[in-house]
Amino acid sequence: MSRLDSFIRRLQAQRACLDLAAHLVRELDGDVLELGLGNGRTYDHLRQLFPDRKIYVCERRIAAHPDCVPPAELLLLGDMRDTLQTARQLLGRRVALAHLDPATGDSPASLALAAELAPLIMPLLRPGGMFVSEPAITRDELSRVPLPEGVAPGRYNLYRYVNCRSSA
Amino acid sequence: MSRLDSFIRRLQAQRACLDLAAHLVRELDGDVLELGLGNGRTYDHLRQLFPDRKIYVCERRIAAHPDCVPPAELLLLGDMRDTLQTARQLLGRRVALAHLDPATGDSPASLALAAELAPLIMPLLRPGGMFVSEPAITRDELSRVPLPEGVAPGRYNLYRYVNCRSSA
Repeated sequence: MSRLDSFIRRLQAQRACLDLAAHLVRELDGDVLELGLGNGRTYDHLRQLFPDRKIYVCERRIAAHPDCVPPAELLLLGDMRDTLQTARQLLGRRVALAHLDPATGDSPASLALAAELAPLIMPLLRPGGMFVSEPAITRDELSRVPLPEGVAPGRYNLYRYVNCRSSA
Repeated sequence: MSRLDSFIRRLQAQRACLDLAAHLVRELDGDVLELGLGNGRTYDHLRQLFPDRKIYVCERRIAAHPDCVPPAELLLLGDMRDTLQTARQLLGRRVALAHLDPATGDSPASLALAAELAPLIMPLLRPGGMFVSEPAITRDELSRVPLPEGVAPGRYNLYRYVNCRSSA
C-alpha cells in the first residue's frame, strides 16, 4: 500500500467516522468543537453535517482556505493547551461532538498531544456526546463506539462520553 | 459536497488515472517523470507502480517525508521552467509516463503553469507515452484517453502522446 493509498483511506475513515458521529448525536443538543482547523477541509465537512449548530474551532494560527475560516466569535485562537482551559466557562458540558486530528498520524508526538489535551476536552463534553479522534485515547470517561463499516481498527477512533459512574 | 468530499474524490481520481496510465504503458520502455514532489505521496505510489523504472522528479525545494525523497541522481532540483529545459538532453523522448499536479486545482494559476510547462514536457515524451495531468492541457501532440470508471470528466486528465502527424 502506497502513502497515497494510505492517505486516501485515512481521509475516508475520517469522513465516515464524522458522518456516523453526527448521526449518533442527532437527538443530543449541543455545540461542535473542531480541535485544529488546518486547511479547513474537515471544518467545511462539519459545517455541512451541522448546518444549525455552532462549530467552535481551536487553532494556533489561521492558514485555511478563505472560504473555510470560522466566524471570529467561534474561533479560539492560540495554543490549545491554553484556549481549552479558558473555553471551559464558555463550553463546559455543552459540546455534543468534538473532533481531534493533529494530522500527524498515530505518531508518538500525536499520541502525546492527545494525552495532554484529553483532560482539557473531557469537561467540555456532554454526557452522550461523541469524541472523534485520530490518535487513540484511553480515558475512563470514554467508551469506544464500533467504527463504521470499511474502517480498519486503529485507523480512526470513535468514542462516546459517559459519566465515570455509568462507565463502570 | 464538502471540501473534504471533493479532496477525497480528487485523490481517488489521481490514483485511478495513474494506475490506468501505468497499465497502458506496460509494454512501452522508458522512464517516469514526476513534475513536483510535494509531500512525496504520489511519488511513493509511482514507485510501487514502477518498481523497475527510473523515476525522475522535478522539484524546487524538497519538503517531502524522508522516506519519499528520490535518489539524488534522479532529482531535478530547481524551477521546472529551467530544469525541464536542461532535462532535454537527459530525457529527450525517453519518458513513458509524466505526471503533472501542481496541487492548486483547476485554478487559473495552475492552468497557466501547465500551459507554460507543456512545451517543455512534450519533447521528453516517447510516442505512445502517457501524460497524466490535473490541469487540462490542449496540445496537438496530446490525444485524450478516456478516464477510468468513476472519475468525473474534468476532475483529472489523461493523454497519450502522439506524433503530430499521426494525430491528424
